[in-house]
Amino acid sequence: MISPTFTIRCGIRLDAAERADFSRQVAPHHATFPDGETPILGAAAPDRELAGADIVFGQPDVASLMAAKNLRWVHLSSAGYTRYDNDAFRAFVRERGIAVTNSSAVFAEPCAQQAMAFILAAARVLPEALRDRSLPDSPEWRRLRRRHAVLGPDTTVLLLGYGAIARRLATLLAPYGVRILASRRKPEGDEGVRVVPPEEVSGALGEADHVVNILPASSSTIGFMDAAKFAAMKPGAFFHNIGRGDTVDQGALATALTSGTLAGAWLDVTSPEPLPEDHPLRAIPACHITPHTAGGHTDETAALVRHFTGNLRRFVAGEPLKDRVM
Amino acid sequence: MISPTFTIRCGIRLDAAERADFSRQVAPHHATFPDGETPILGAAAPDRELAGADIVFGQPDVASLMAAKNLRWVHLSSAGYTRYDNDAFRAFVRERGIAVTNSSAVFAEPCAQQAMAFILAAARVLPEALRDRSLPDSPEWRRLRRRHAVLGPDTTVLLLGYGAIARRLATLLAPYGVRILASRRKPEGDEGVRVVPPEEVSGALGEADHVVNILPASSSTIGFMDAAKFAAMKPGAFFHNIGRGDTVDQGALATALTSGTLAGAWLDVTSPEPLPEDHPLRAIPACHITPHTAGGHTDETAALVRHFTGNLRRFVAGEPLKDRVM
Repeated sequence: MISPTFTIRCGIRLDAAERADFSRQVAPHHATFPDGETPILGAAAPDRELAGADIVFGQPDVASLMAAKNLRWVHLSSAGYTRYDNDAFRAFVRERGIAVTNSSAVFAEPCAQQAMAFILAAARVLPEALRDRSLPDSPEWRRLRRRHAVLGPDTTVLLLGYGAIARRLATLLAPYGVRILASRRKPEGDEGVRVVPPEEVSGALGEADHVVNILPASSSTIGFMDAAKFAAMKPGAFFHNIGRGDTVDQGALATALTSGTLAGAWLDVTSPEPLPEDHPLRAIPACHITPHTAGGHTDETAALVRHFTGNLRRFVAGEPLKDRVM
Repeated sequence: MISPTFTIRCGIRLDAAERADFSRQVAPHHATFPDGETPILGAAAPDRELAGADIVFGQPDVASLMAAKNLRWVHLSSAGYTRYDNDAFRAFVRERGIAVTNSSAVFAEPCAQQAMAFILAAARVLPEALRDRSLPDSPEWRRLRRRHAVLGPDTTVLLLGYGAIARRLATLLAPYGVRILASRRKPEGDEGVRVVPPEEVSGALGEADHVVNILPASSSTIGFMDAAKFAAMKPGAFFHNIGRGDTVDQGALATALTSGTLAGAWLDVTSPEPLPEDHPLRAIPACHITPHTAGGHTDETAALVRHFTGNLRRFVAGEPLKDRVM
């Protein structure tokens, strides 16, 4: 039996040497690359040459995908896939038998480490301590020192969403002995932590010292953290967001911070990005914002390509693909 | 048999209610308290009333201790004990059969968590990311994103000193799968990580992405991290200090940072404390300084008292004391 040879449209940003290397790695399949800039977060421009591809890797334009006659598999270079998560696109891939995978496995580790960095920086009041100039043993110094929390059995961490990032974060949290709760739409019984259905999340919010929002953006999650949910949070707790900015009512978050309900917020995602300089959250000292870099790592491109080529091997062999989302 | 009743001089800072509670907890033994301010980091003032104590708890003045006729046990409220670590005091306690314990167990957890917070904040370039205002997908944004490291099997962490803090830190680091090296004067074979004798530490410094200095101050550790050792460090590595400031040649550290050898330093301890505003290290953006708060926690006083009363029970029962240092 002769294996078929596929045409792969690779839209991730690669320099000339990386493109040559990619082509070698996917041989005997044939890689083609669009001209110009290819974004990491945004959608690529319409790509007419995509029409001939069997396989697409990147952040392809939806209309271009839906015009591709031979398309069999789309591998997204992100973990999020809001742009593709709609009835029209789902019907298109279902009718045509097209597989859609994402790069969730590539970003689970950096995102979990980012969340752990946020939790520890919050607990150890790092921003305040780094600015402090008080004299050792002065009353100010004692007050700062006593604000340092220790993560332990008396600490509750609530994870909103329980996918690959949350599972990995639960593993990183394990040696601290903290209590972990997870909110998940469809509990599968294999979570290893106490699972709370989304409709019962308010009680869990009242128990958590750290709430980590890892929700993707979808019709059921937009504005999930609303005023009522922030009001249900435990006084003095921290809110962390490494999911999507529009799952949060940012006005309600600002109120929870300025009213003193929350001790602080650590956000890697906002709506929009970057948040304008005059946005109320920018003026709140306890609100700490990083620019959607939680998934970043020095080795990001190589890791994305490894994940794709692993799935390519499975695709050719007819094995189940990793990180299949449709 | 009637157990003896001891007089306990308690010099840690307690308010009136806490003193009453302490007295109840140690009954039938008799607690007395000095007047005035009692420091956390510095030595207490000379204390004439200490002369009648059987047991002393706090940061007692050395001369006052050496004048105490009935002294049988000194429990220090710190992990460090430089002030007591000299030939005259060691001879005094040896000749008189006085036990000296410290509060190492109380501070191991917060200090290990502080070190973990430093390592993750450094790896995830938190200070830079929190200041960043670049547009998503801009060249500046991509550069920042690619600077984010992921702790993993390719990461080496070198621990200078291998006591309670380092052991706990090794446990917190375990789920990341990093390679851990430890420098220890007297390897005991139970470390569970690769141990490097101090005279061979230069090679290990060249392999480490994160060097965590947890050395106490002693004649053999003052200035341990000198210009030669900083020069031996791996380019782009991070230096963290949660031990004592005077184990580091701070001028050599400043040079290693400004020359670009090191990517950054995270220091909870300096010499002196606080470091003057015009000190060269203050002017280096990659040098991050917290004010000797690594051991801090909300529950610090209660934890110190619990550790002392646990040892008091052992002392009365004739059992070995925890955290005995002399």
